[in-house]
Amino acid sequence: MQPLPGFRDFLPSDCAARNYIFAKWREVACRYGFVEWDGPVLEPTELYRKKSGNEIVGQLFNFIDKGEREVALRPELTPTLGRVVAAHDREFKKPLKWFSIGQFFRYEKQQRGRLREHFQLNCDIIGEDSPNADVDLVALCVDILREFGLTEKDFVIRISDREFWTDLLRAHKIDSRAWDEILQAIDKSERQPREKTAEKLGQLAGPVLKLLDQGGTSEKLDRLVEGLRERGLAEFVNVDVRIVRGLAYYTGMVFEVFDRAGKLRAIAGGGRYDNLIAQLSDDAVSLPALGFAMGDVVLGELINATPVARGKMEKAIAAANKIDIYIVIAKEDRRADAIAQLQQLRDRGYRVDYPLTAEKVARQFQAAEDEGASLALLYGDEWPQIAVKDLATGEQKLIAREDLLAHLQGQPSLSS
Amino acid sequence: MQPLPGFRDFLPSDCAARNYIFAKWREVACRYGFVEWDGPVLEPTELYRKKSGNEIVGQLFNFIDKGEREVALRPELTPTLGRVVAAHDREFKKPLKWFSIGQFFRYEKQQRGRLREHFQLNCDIIGEDSPNADVDLVALCVDILREFGLTEKDFVIRISDREFWTDLLRAHKIDSRAWDEILQAIDKSERQPREKTAEKLGQLAGPVLKLLDQGGTSEKLDRLVEGLRERGLAEFVNVDVRIVRGLAYYTGMVFEVFDRAGKLRAIAGGGRYDNLIAQLSDDAVSLPALGFAMGDVVLGELINATPVARGKMEKAIAAANKIDIYIVIAKEDRRADAIAQLQQLRDRGYRVDYPLTAEKVARQFQAAEDEGASLALLYGDEWPQIAVKDLATGEQKLIAREDLLAHLQGQPSLSS
Repeated sequence: MQPLPGFRDFLPSDCAARNYIFAKWREVACRYGFVEWDGPVLEPTELYRKKSGNEIVGQLFNFIDKGEREVALRPELTPTLGRVVAAHDREFKKPLKWFSIGQFFRYEKQQRGRLREHFQLNCDIIGEDSPNADVDLVALCVDILREFGLTEKDFVIRISDREFWTDLLRAHKIDSRAWDEILQAIDKSERQPREKTAEKLGQLAGPVLKLLDQGGTSEKLDRLVEGLRERGLAEFVNVDVRIVRGLAYYTGMVFEVFDRAGKLRAIAGGGRYDNLIAQLSDDAVSLPALGFAMGDVVLGELINATPVARGKMEKAIAAANKIDIYIVIAKEDRRADAIAQLQQLRDRGYRVDYPLTAEKVARQFQAAEDEGASLALLYGDEWPQIAVKDLATGEQKLIAREDLLAHLQGQPSLSS
Repeated sequence: MQPLPGFRDFLPSDCAARNYIFAKWREVACRYGFVEWDGPVLEPTELYRKKSGNEIVGQLFNFIDKGEREVALRPELTPTLGRVVAAHDREFKKPLKWFSIGQFFRYEKQQRGRLREHFQLNCDIIGEDSPNADVDLVALCVDILREFGLTEKDFVIRISDREFWTDLLRAHKIDSRAWDEILQAIDKSERQPREKTAEKLGQLAGPVLKLLDQGGTSEKLDRLVEGLRERGLAEFVNVDVRIVRGLAYYTGMVFEVFDRAGKLRAIAGGGRYDNLIAQLSDDAVSLPALGFAMGDVVLGELINATPVARGKMEKAIAAANKIDIYIVIAKEDRRADAIAQLQQLRDRGYRVDYPLTAEKVARQFQAAEDEGASLALLYGDEWPQIAVKDLATGEQKLIAREDLLAHLQGQPSLSS
């Protein structure tokens, strides 16, 4: 009677919360001139191996299908993006500004904020190397979170730059084959004992730990913050070179979004990956790119932990699952008349429900209340008039049947 | 560079078409007082075996996960519905009117109108045995298709009743173990040579073939059509006892929706399944139920083959992927001023794009047109005034920067 471990059932209120998050994601992405696309949830396993190496396979829901193909439920969207962009390169002018909302899967140990499936917004800009694109992408991330009623008191975007560190590695003449391990050690330094990080950093422990302690910045990062300041969004970001992002393919600016209270996992993360599309397409297409992903689970936790944001979401959930009008059939011999008007009302776009079987009037009013109806229409002795009752104020008016549609058009509480 | 066989990439115009279909499904289901829910796309394989027997497994994307569980990508929603309704039986008053929009998977030979994945709307009424529920469900199916601009000239709902046939089998004292095979033969009779059907029907060939030739009806079916007539929807349905539905679990009214031209596969299908929830829940919960499913693939084909419906969809696709305003930066030294207003405009909910790098003005106007902008705002020599150009009429006005937001509020072509 349970879903699989790490998978969710969405009862109506859960589903309305999910739809609320999707609607906000979609709305703000469209404001930024992004267009929506999607890929399959099942892809050849090779697509993920190509990007992330063999280790990723251990975290996949992967299998051999009935046609002997190695396939996997998608763990992330970027490899599909690379495939699709390379396949349709000539059809679209660059830069592309594409977003997608879909479900992703990882076979991982379940923890708070991490299930085996989640929904994710992906926003990517393809074919643009101007730092203005970096500003626009981070601004989009800020504005999406603001749209949920979250403020600079609730979240912070920690912005960094991989080149801040790779420039240092180059200056110290570190063999580029050792870079990944050092960058990983920097990425993990906040969650590791200092000695362990120092050990991994080896000869670089001194200068790197100093930078991690004191903080640092670069001209590029300063310009990025300045770009956000021009938009009035500077208070949402901190330059923080401790952020590196675990994935090897990032090439420039990177960022991660956290709750200010520091209690939750990352809400979103992304950055520049200028070489990845060439790598994924076997050099068929080379395009600079940047993007971020935001999941529904941690975001939902932050919304629920923030009273203003939670209030907004709860209002949206109530509105999603309410009807406008409940038809009360007080006399069964008025059922056919009521049904004829039911059809007219639904045709006009109102959300209307009614008793499928004969019920006591009190029970029908209870159903009207349970379903969140704004109005009740009583079909009974008053026919050919209908008693229209406002369920918020209790006010009741008699309306002739032929005047009903015109009367309802003036009602502000109805959805249509 | 290709998706797996039978799986689709959704480029922006495909994705907008998909979202259009989802939005209409959702809108009309809500008008009928249905609320949205969803289940996991991955479920224990056993859930499908329990409902459909072992044969179903041959058509599944099923595998053993890393925790040694037998799991499958969902081929349909009803088993999950049974699981969820039984698990939460006491939390919800009956009848439930639930709908869901999600993706489903079958490992099948690809044919026209049948891929290995598709999206499906499911609408179910749980806990109501009144025939009024049957009328409401069929009416919902009609109204969903009408909402796409399809008329009684484009589609027909063929309504039948399993009991029409099981009453006959009972009258002929046919062993109930033989029923399934006979019902399957009736279901397939339109697609099989007459002799083959006769052979399968055995002693019943005479009376059954006569009924299939002449047609038949029942009091129950007549009442159902009468209920639809009260709503003005009778012309969308035909009583047609040749419809039985292949699945063994239907117990009463069944229906299938076809294009009038008879060129496509079924657009939707459903019926009553009063025993299934008990069966799926091992008799923990017993509730009468009925529902239908409608897929996105065949529906999309019918919409595309019907000029009025296609026109409506194309309009929606264009609107989904258009922006409101393109900011033309005619002088680069106005970029910071333009960006400050960009942020204000997006905050107001307008969809706004702009050149990420310095571009010739003509190229910027081309981008504005490509993205479907209604207005272009020119930031150049006129500053602190902005030239606001209506891209449909070519009309241009100079507006002071502080008056811009007020000026735009009067523009009917903008999305916010």
